[in-house]
Amino acid sequence: MERKGKAFIISGPSGVGKSTVLKALFEGRDDLYFSVSATTRDPRPGEVNGQHYHFISPEQFMQWINEDAFLEYAQYVGNFYGTPMRYVDEAMEAGKDVILDIEVQGAMQVIAKRPDTIRIFIAPPDWDELERRLTMRGTDTPEKIQQRLLRAKVEMKTAMDYDYFVINSTVENAVAELRAIILAEHCRIDERMDELMNI
Amino acid sequence: MERKGKAFIISGPSGVGKSTVLKALFEGRDDLYFSVSATTRDPRPGEVNGQHYHFISPEQFMQWINEDAFLEYAQYVGNFYGTPMRYVDEAMEAGKDVILDIEVQGAMQVIAKRPDTIRIFIAPPDWDELERRLTMRGTDTPEKIQQRLLRAKVEMKTAMDYDYFVINSTVENAVAELRAIILAEHCRIDERMDELMNI
Repeated sequence: MERKGKAFIISGPSGVGKSTVLKALFEGRDDLYFSVSATTRDPRPGEVNGQHYHFISPEQFMQWINEDAFLEYAQYVGNFYGTPMRYVDEAMEAGKDVILDIEVQGAMQVIAKRPDTIRIFIAPPDWDELERRLTMRGTDTPEKIQQRLLRAKVEMKTAMDYDYFVINSTVENAVAELRAIILAEHCRIDERMDELMNI
Repeated sequence: MERKGKAFIISGPSGVGKSTVLKALFEGRDDLYFSVSATTRDPRPGEVNGQHYHFISPEQFMQWINEDAFLEYAQYVGNFYGTPMRYVDEAMEAGKDVILDIEVQGAMQVIAKRPDTIRIFIAPPDWDELERRLTMRGTDTPEKIQQRLLRAKVEMKTAMDYDYFVINSTVENAVAELRAIILAEHCRIDERMDELMNI
Protein backbone atom coordinates (compact mmCIF):
# COMPACT_ATOMS: atom_id res chain seq x y z
CA MET A 1 0.00 0.00 0.00
CA GLU A 2 1.61 3.18 -1.24
CA ARG A 3 0.66 5.99 1.09
CA LYS A 4 1.80 9.59 1.08
CA GLY A 5 3.02 11.08 4.33
CA LYS A 6 1.16 13.79 6.22
CA ALA A 7 2.51 16.83 8.07
CA PHE A 8 1.83 17.41 11.78
CA ILE A 9 2.65 20.63 13.61
CA ILE A 10 3.36 20.08 17.28
CA SER A 11 3.29 23.17 19.48
CA GLY A 12 3.37 23.60 23.20
CA PRO A 13 4.29 26.15 25.85
CA SER A 14 7.74 26.37 27.40
CA GLY A 15 8.16 23.78 30.17
CA VAL A 16 5.39 21.46 28.97
CA GLY A 17 7.93 18.72 28.19
CA LYS A 18 7.60 18.80 24.41
CA SER A 19 11.20 17.76 23.65
CA THR A 20 10.96 14.71 25.93
CA VAL A 21 7.65 13.71 24.32
CA LEU A 22 9.03 14.18 20.79
CA LYS A 23 12.12 12.14 21.61
CA ALA A 24 9.94 9.28 22.87
CA LEU A 25 7.62 9.63 19.85
CA PHE A 26 10.51 8.98 17.44
CA GLU A 27 11.81 5.88 19.23
CA GLY A 28 11.73 2.97 16.80
CA ARG A 29 9.73 4.91 14.25
CA ASP A 30 11.50 5.27 10.90
CA ASP A 31 8.19 6.21 9.27
CA LEU A 32 8.47 9.61 10.97
CA TYR A 33 10.65 12.49 9.84
CA PHE A 34 11.59 15.38 12.10
CA SER A 35 11.71 18.64 10.18
CA VAL A 36 15.04 20.40 10.73
CA SER A 37 14.94 24.22 10.68
CA ALA A 38 17.28 26.48 8.78
CA THR A 39 18.94 29.33 10.69
CA THR A 40 21.37 32.17 10.08
CA ARG A 41 22.83 31.94 13.58
CA ASP A 42 26.25 30.37 14.16
CA PRO A 43 26.44 26.72 15.25
CA ARG A 44 27.05 26.19 18.96
CA PRO A 45 29.66 23.65 20.11
CA GLY A 46 28.39 20.15 19.33
CA GLU A 47 25.68 21.26 16.89
CA VAL A 48 25.74 19.36 13.62
CA ASN A 49 24.70 20.93 10.32
CA GLY A 50 21.60 19.21 8.89
CA GLN A 51 20.85 17.52 12.21
CA HIS A 52 20.26 20.30 14.74
CA TYR A 53 19.81 23.01 12.09
CA HIS A 54 20.60 23.71 8.49
CA PHE A 55 23.15 26.47 9.09
CA ILE A 56 22.95 28.89 6.17
CA SER A 57 24.15 32.42 5.42
CA PRO A 58 21.84 35.46 5.66
CA GLU A 59 22.17 35.81 1.86
CA GLN A 60 21.01 32.23 1.35
CA PHE A 61 18.13 32.78 3.77
CA MET A 62 17.02 35.90 1.87
CA GLN A 63 17.20 34.00 -1.40
CA TRP A 64 14.99 31.21 0.00
CA ILE A 65 12.49 33.80 1.23
CA ASN A 66 12.39 35.30 -2.27
CA GLU A 67 11.96 31.85 -3.82
CA ASP A 68 9.08 31.13 -1.40
CA ALA A 69 11.07 28.13 -0.19
CA PHE A 70 9.95 28.37 3.46
CA LEU A 71 6.79 26.96 5.00
CA GLU A 72 7.28 29.58 7.73
CA TYR A 73 10.05 31.78 9.03
CA ALA A 74 10.67 34.34 11.75
CA GLN A 75 13.35 36.60 13.11
CA TYR A 76 14.46 36.12 16.71
CA VAL A 77 17.12 38.19 18.49
CA GLY A 78 18.83 39.17 15.27
CA ASN A 79 18.80 35.74 13.61
CA PHE A 80 16.45 34.12 11.13
CA TYR A 81 14.84 30.73 11.62
CA GLY A 82 12.67 28.95 9.09
CA THR A 83 11.26 25.64 7.88
CA PRO A 84 12.52 24.79 4.38
CA MET A 85 9.69 23.35 2.31
CA ARG A 86 11.93 21.05 0.31
CA TYR A 87 12.88 18.50 2.99
CA VAL A 88 9.30 18.33 4.23
CA ASP A 89 7.96 17.61 0.73
CA GLU A 90 10.67 15.03 0.02
CA ALA A 91 9.89 13.14 3.23
CA MET A 92 6.15 13.18 2.54
CA GLU A 93 6.68 11.94 -1.02
CA ALA A 94 8.76 9.11 0.45
CA GLY A 95 5.72 8.15 2.56
CA LYS A 96 6.99 9.55 5.85
CA ASP A 97 4.91 11.57 8.27
CA VAL A 98 6.60 14.86 9.03
CA ILE A 99 6.71 16.31 12.53
CA LEU A 100 7.09 20.08 12.61
CA ASP A 101 8.10 21.53 15.98
CA ILE A 102 6.66 25.00 15.40
CA GLU A 103 5.09 27.65 17.63
CA VAL A 104 1.56 28.98 17.25
CA GLN A 105 2.60 32.03 15.16
CA GLY A 106 4.62 29.92 12.72
CA ALA A 107 1.79 27.39 12.54
CA MET A 108 -0.49 30.09 11.09
CA GLN A 109 2.01 30.67 8.26
CA VAL A 110 2.19 26.92 7.54
CA ILE A 111 -1.61 26.59 7.47
CA ALA A 112 -1.87 29.49 5.01
CA LYS A 113 0.38 27.52 2.63
CA ARG A 114 -0.70 23.98 3.50
CA PRO A 115 -4.22 23.95 4.96
CA ASP A 116 -4.17 20.15 5.30
CA THR A 117 -1.43 20.24 7.94
CA ILE A 118 -2.68 18.78 11.22
CA ARG A 119 -2.08 20.96 14.28
CA ILE A 120 -1.53 19.43 17.70
CA PHE A 121 -1.01 21.42 20.89
CA ILE A 122 0.68 19.78 23.86
CA ALA A 123 -0.93 21.09 27.03
CA PRO A 124 0.11 20.63 30.65
CA PRO A 125 -2.29 18.64 32.88
CA ASP A 126 -2.83 21.87 34.85
CA TRP A 127 -1.18 25.22 35.51
CA ASP A 128 0.23 24.24 38.90
CA GLU A 129 2.00 21.33 37.23
CA LEU A 130 3.44 23.62 34.54
CA GLU A 131 4.67 26.04 37.22
CA ARG A 132 6.19 23.11 39.11
CA ARG A 133 8.01 21.88 35.98
CA LEU A 134 9.32 25.36 35.16
CA THR A 135 10.53 25.76 38.76
CA MET A 136 12.19 22.33 38.77
CA ARG A 137 14.22 23.18 35.67
CA GLY A 138 15.96 25.75 37.89
CA THR A 139 16.91 27.96 34.94
CA ASP A 140 14.51 30.85 35.51
CA THR A 141 13.86 33.47 38.19
CA PRO A 142 10.40 33.46 39.83
CA GLU A 143 9.49 36.56 37.74
CA LYS A 144 10.57 34.80 34.54
CA ILE A 145 8.51 31.74 35.49
CA GLN A 146 5.41 33.91 35.99
CA GLN A 147 6.06 35.48 32.56
CA ARG A 148 6.33 32.02 30.98
CA LEU A 149 3.09 30.92 32.66
CA LEU A 150 1.25 33.97 31.37
CA ARG A 151 2.68 33.38 27.89
CA ALA A 152 1.61 29.73 28.02
CA LYS A 153 -1.98 30.79 28.82
CA VAL A 154 -2.01 33.25 25.91
CA GLU A 155 -0.53 30.60 23.59
CA MET A 156 -3.20 28.13 24.55
CA LYS A 157 -5.92 30.66 23.77
CA THR A 158 -4.46 31.35 20.33
CA ALA A 159 -4.26 27.59 19.72
CA MET A 160 -8.03 27.23 19.97
CA ASP A 161 -8.30 26.57 16.23
CA TYR A 162 -5.87 23.66 16.45
CA ASP A 163 -7.13 20.16 15.60
CA TYR A 164 -5.99 18.28 18.70
CA PHE A 165 -4.89 18.88 22.25
CA VAL A 166 -2.61 16.29 23.78
CA ILE A 167 -2.37 16.50 27.55
CA ASN A 168 1.10 15.66 28.81
CA SER A 169 0.10 14.02 32.09
CA THR A 170 2.80 11.39 31.50
CA VAL A 171 5.21 10.99 28.57
CA GLU A 172 3.73 7.52 27.80
CA ASN A 173 0.24 8.95 27.67
CA ALA A 174 1.20 11.88 25.46
CA VAL A 175 3.10 9.60 23.05
CA ALA A 176 0.17 7.15 22.88
CA GLU A 177 -2.16 10.02 22.01
CA LEU A 178 0.20 11.42 19.37
CA ARG A 179 0.60 8.00 17.74
CA ALA A 180 -3.20 7.49 17.78
CA ILE A 181 -3.73 10.88 16.12
CA ILE A 182 -1.18 10.14 13.39
CA LEU A 183 -2.71 6.72 12.64
CA ALA A 184 -6.30 7.99 12.80
CA GLU A 185 -5.52 10.82 10.38
CA HIS A 186 -4.40 8.21 7.85
CA CYS A 187 -7.81 6.50 8.22
CA ARG A 188 -9.72 9.66 7.27
CA ILE A 189 -12.03 9.23 4.34
CA ASP A 190 -10.41 11.91 2.16
CA GLU A 191 -7.07 10.27 2.80
CA ARG A 192 -8.25 6.83 1.74
CA MET A 193 -10.54 7.85 -1.10
CA ASP A 194 -7.98 7.05 -3.80
CA GLU A 195 -7.20 3.64 -2.37
CA LEU A 196 -10.89 2.80 -2.09
CA MET A 197 -11.71 3.88 -5.59
CA ASN A 198 -9.25 1.28 -6.82
CA ILE A 199 -10.73 -1.63 -4.92
CA MET B 1 -10.21 13.25 34.60
CA GLU B 2 -13.95 13.02 34.11
CA ARG B 3 -14.62 12.41 30.45
CA LYS B 4 -17.90 11.74 28.69
CA GLY B 5 -18.10 8.85 26.29
CA LYS B 6 -18.49 9.25 22.55
CA ALA B 7 -20.56 7.23 20.09
CA PHE B 8 -19.01 5.45 17.11
CA ILE B 9 -21.01 3.84 14.31
CA ILE B 10 -19.21 0.94 12.68
CA SER B 11 -20.56 -0.20 9.32
CA GLY B 12 -19.22 -2.61 6.76
CA PRO B 13 -20.35 -4.85 3.94
CA SER B 14 -21.32 -8.46 4.44
CA GLY B 15 -18.23 -10.68 4.55
CA VAL B 16 -15.78 -7.93 5.48
CA GLY B 17 -15.15 -9.56 8.86
CA LYS B 18 -16.81 -6.92 11.02
CA SER B 19 -17.93 -9.28 13.82
CA THR B 20 -14.42 -10.71 14.21
CA VAL B 21 -12.94 -7.21 14.32
CA LEU B 22 -15.53 -6.02 16.86
CA LYS B 23 -14.94 -9.03 19.07
CA ALA B 24 -11.20 -8.33 19.08
CA LEU B 25 -11.83 -4.61 19.67
CA PHE B 26 -13.71 -5.35 22.91
CA GLU B 27 -11.07 -7.68 24.35
CA GLY B 28 -9.91 -6.26 27.68
CA ARG B 29 -11.72 -2.97 27.12
CA ASP B 30 -14.32 -2.21 29.79
CA ASP B 31 -14.34 1.43 28.69
CA LEU B 32 -16.29 0.35 25.59
CA TYR B 33 -20.00 -0.45 25.49
CA PHE B 34 -21.60 -2.42 22.68
CA SER B 35 -25.05 -1.09 21.86
CA VAL B 36 -27.62 -3.92 21.91
CA SER B 37 -30.53 -3.56 19.49
CA ALA B 38 -34.19 -4.03 20.32
CA THR B 39 -36.24 -6.34 18.11
CA THR B 40 -39.77 -7.66 17.79
CA ARG B 41 -38.63 -11.02 16.44
CA ASP B 42 -38.64 -14.12 18.63
CA PRO B 43 -35.41 -15.16 20.36
CA ARG B 44 -33.56 -18.02 18.65
CA PRO B 45 -32.23 -20.89 20.75
CA GLY B 46 -29.33 -19.65 22.87
CA GLU B 47 -30.10 -15.96 22.43
CA VAL B 48 -30.16 -14.04 25.70
CA ASN B 49 -32.45 -11.07 26.28
CA GLY B 50 -30.42 -7.89 26.83
CA GLN B 51 -27.28 -9.51 25.51
CA HIS B 52 -27.99 -10.47 21.89
CA TYR B 53 -31.08 -8.29 21.63
CA HIS B 54 -33.63 -6.58 23.79
CA PHE B 55 -36.62 -8.75 22.84
CA ILE B 56 -39.73 -6.60 23.03
CA SER B 57 -43.33 -6.82 21.81
CA PRO B 58 -44.55 -5.01 18.67
CA GLU B 59 -46.72 -2.85 20.97
CA GLN B 60 -43.69 -1.86 23.03
CA PHE B 61 -41.72 -1.13 19.84
CA MET B 62 -44.51 1.12 18.53
CA GLN B 63 -44.63 2.94 21.86
CA TRP B 64 -40.87 3.56 21.74
CA ILE B 65 -41.18 4.90 18.18
CA ASN B 66 -43.92 7.28 19.38
CA GLU B 67 -41.78 8.36 22.32
CA ASP B 68 -38.85 9.02 19.95
CA ALA B 69 -36.87 6.54 22.00
CA PHE B 70 -34.85 5.12 19.08
CA LEU B 71 -31.67 6.49 17.56
CA GLU B 72 -32.66 4.56 14.42
CA TYR B 73 -34.97 1.72 13.49
CA ALA B 74 -36.00 -0.32 10.46
CA GLN B 75 -38.30 -3.10 9.41
CA TYR B 76 -36.73 -6.26 7.98
CA VAL B 77 -38.67 -9.32 6.77
CA GLY B 78 -41.66 -8.54 8.96
CA ASN B 79 -39.80 -7.70 12.15
CA PHE B 80 -38.64 -4.41 13.63
CA TYR B 81 -35.09 -3.68 14.72
CA GLY B 82 -33.92 -0.51 16.44
CA THR B 83 -31.30 1.15 18.63
CA PRO B 84 -32.80 2.33 21.93
CA MET B 85 -31.41 5.73 22.84
CA ARG B 86 -31.54 5.13 26.58
CA TYR B 87 -28.76 2.54 26.96
CA VAL B 88 -26.48 4.52 24.65
CA ASP B 89 -26.95 7.70 26.67
CA GLU B 90 -26.48 5.92 29.98
CA ALA B 91 -23.22 4.37 28.83
CA MET B 92 -21.91 7.69 27.52
CA GLU B 93 -22.83 9.46 30.75
CA ALA B 94 -20.89 6.75 32.61
CA GLY B 95 -17.85 7.71 30.49
CA LYS B 96 -17.95 4.73 28.15
CA ASP B 97 -17.48 4.92 24.41
CA VAL B 98 -20.41 3.34 22.63
CA ILE B 99 -19.96 1.13 19.58
CA LEU B 100 -23.01 1.02 17.30
CA ASP B 101 -23.01 -1.80 14.74
CA ILE B 102 -25.32 -0.11 12.24
CA GLU B 103 -25.64 -0.15 8.46
CA VAL B 104 -25.31 2.89 6.23
CA GLN B 105 -29.08 3.62 6.08
CA GLY B 106 -29.46 3.47 9.86
CA ALA B 107 -26.35 5.61 10.28
CA MET B 108 -28.10 8.44 8.43
CA GLN B 109 -30.94 8.35 10.99
CA VAL B 110 -28.45 8.43 13.87
CA ILE B 111 -26.56 11.39 12.38
CA ALA B 112 -29.82 13.31 11.97
CA LYS B 113 -30.38 12.97 15.74
CA ARG B 114 -26.78 13.01 16.95
CA PRO B 115 -24.55 14.82 14.43
CA ASP B 116 -21.48 14.35 16.65
CA THR B 117 -21.53 10.56 16.22
CA ILE B 118 -18.35 9.36 14.52
CA ARG B 119 -18.87 7.09 11.50
CA ILE B 120 -16.36 4.41 10.59
CA PHE B 121 -16.67 2.12 7.59
CA ILE B 122 -14.76 -1.15 7.55
CA ALA B 123 -13.62 -1.85 4.02
CA PRO B 124 -12.04 -4.96 2.53
CA PRO B 125 -8.43 -4.65 1.31
CA ASP B 126 -9.77 -5.27 -2.22
CA TRP B 127 -12.80 -6.75 -4.00
CA ASP B 128 -11.08 -10.05 -4.83
CA GLU B 129 -10.39 -10.54 -1.14
CA LEU B 130 -14.03 -9.81 -0.24
CA GLU B 131 -15.20 -12.31 -2.89
CA ARG B 132 -12.74 -14.86 -1.49
CA ARG B 133 -14.04 -14.34 2.06
CA LEU B 134 -17.67 -14.64 0.98
CA THR B 135 -16.85 -17.82 -0.97
CA MET B 136 -14.91 -19.32 1.97
CA ARG B 137 -17.89 -18.88 4.29
CA GLY B 138 -19.61 -21.45 2.07
CA THR B 139 -23.10 -20.17 2.95
CA ASP B 140 -24.03 -18.50 -0.34
CA THR B 141 -24.53 -19.53 -3.96
CA PRO B 142 -22.26 -17.90 -6.57
CA GLU B 143 -25.20 -15.69 -7.65
CA LYS B 144 -25.81 -14.60 -4.05
CA ILE B 145 -22.10 -13.82 -3.66
CA GLN B 146 -22.17 -11.60 -6.77
CA GLN B 147 -25.24 -9.83 -5.34
CA ARG B 148 -23.43 -9.26 -2.04
CA LEU B 149 -20.37 -7.90 -3.86
CA LEU B 150 -22.51 -5.46 -5.83
CA ARG B 151 -24.29 -4.41 -2.65
CA ALA B 152 -20.93 -3.91 -0.91
CA LYS B 153 -19.79 -1.56 -3.71
CA VAL B 154 -23.03 0.45 -3.48
CA GLU B 155 -22.72 0.60 0.32
CA MET B 156 -19.19 1.91 0.07
CA LYS B 157 -20.30 4.67 -2.29
CA THR B 158 -23.08 5.74 0.08
CA ALA B 159 -20.55 5.72 2.92
CA MET B 160 -18.48 8.45 1.25
CA ASP B 161 -19.59 11.00 3.88
CA TYR B 162 -18.30 8.82 6.70
CA ASP B 163 -15.45 10.10 8.85
CA TYR B 164 -13.07 7.16 8.64
CA PHE B 165 -12.37 4.09 6.56
CA VAL B 166 -10.67 1.22 8.30
CA ILE B 167 -9.20 -1.34 5.93
CA ASN B 168 -9.49 -4.85 7.28
CA SER B 169 -6.29 -6.27 5.82
CA THR B 170 -5.72 -8.13 9.10
CA VAL B 171 -7.81 -8.16 12.27
CA GLU B 172 -4.85 -6.76 14.28
CA ASN B 173 -4.47 -3.89 11.85
CA ALA B 174 -8.19 -3.07 11.81
CA VAL B 175 -8.37 -3.14 15.61
CA ALA B 176 -5.26 -0.93 15.93
CA GLU B 177 -6.85 1.59 13.57
CA LEU B 178 -10.19 1.53 15.43
CA ARG B 179 -8.47 2.06 18.78
CA ALA B 180 -6.39 4.91 17.34
CA ILE B 181 -9.54 6.58 15.98
CA ILE B 182 -11.34 6.30 19.33
CA LEU B 183 -8.38 7.73 21.26
CA ALA B 184 -7.71 10.48 18.69
CA GLU B 185 -11.36 11.59 18.77
CA HIS B 186 -10.99 12.18 22.52
CA CYS B 187 -8.00 14.45 21.81
CA ARG B 188 -10.03 16.73 19.51
CA ILE B 189 -10.04 20.34 20.53
CA ASP B 190 -13.83 20.64 20.94
CA GLU B 191 -13.74 17.54 23.14
CA ARG B 192 -11.04 18.93 25.42
CA MET B 193 -12.12 22.54 25.48
CA ASP B 194 -13.88 22.24 28.85
CA GLU B 195 -10.93 20.53 30.48
CA LEU B 196 -8.55 23.14 29.14
CA MET B 197 -10.65 26.07 30.26
CA ASN B 198 -10.29 24.76 33.80
CA ILE B 199 -6.52 24.54 33.80
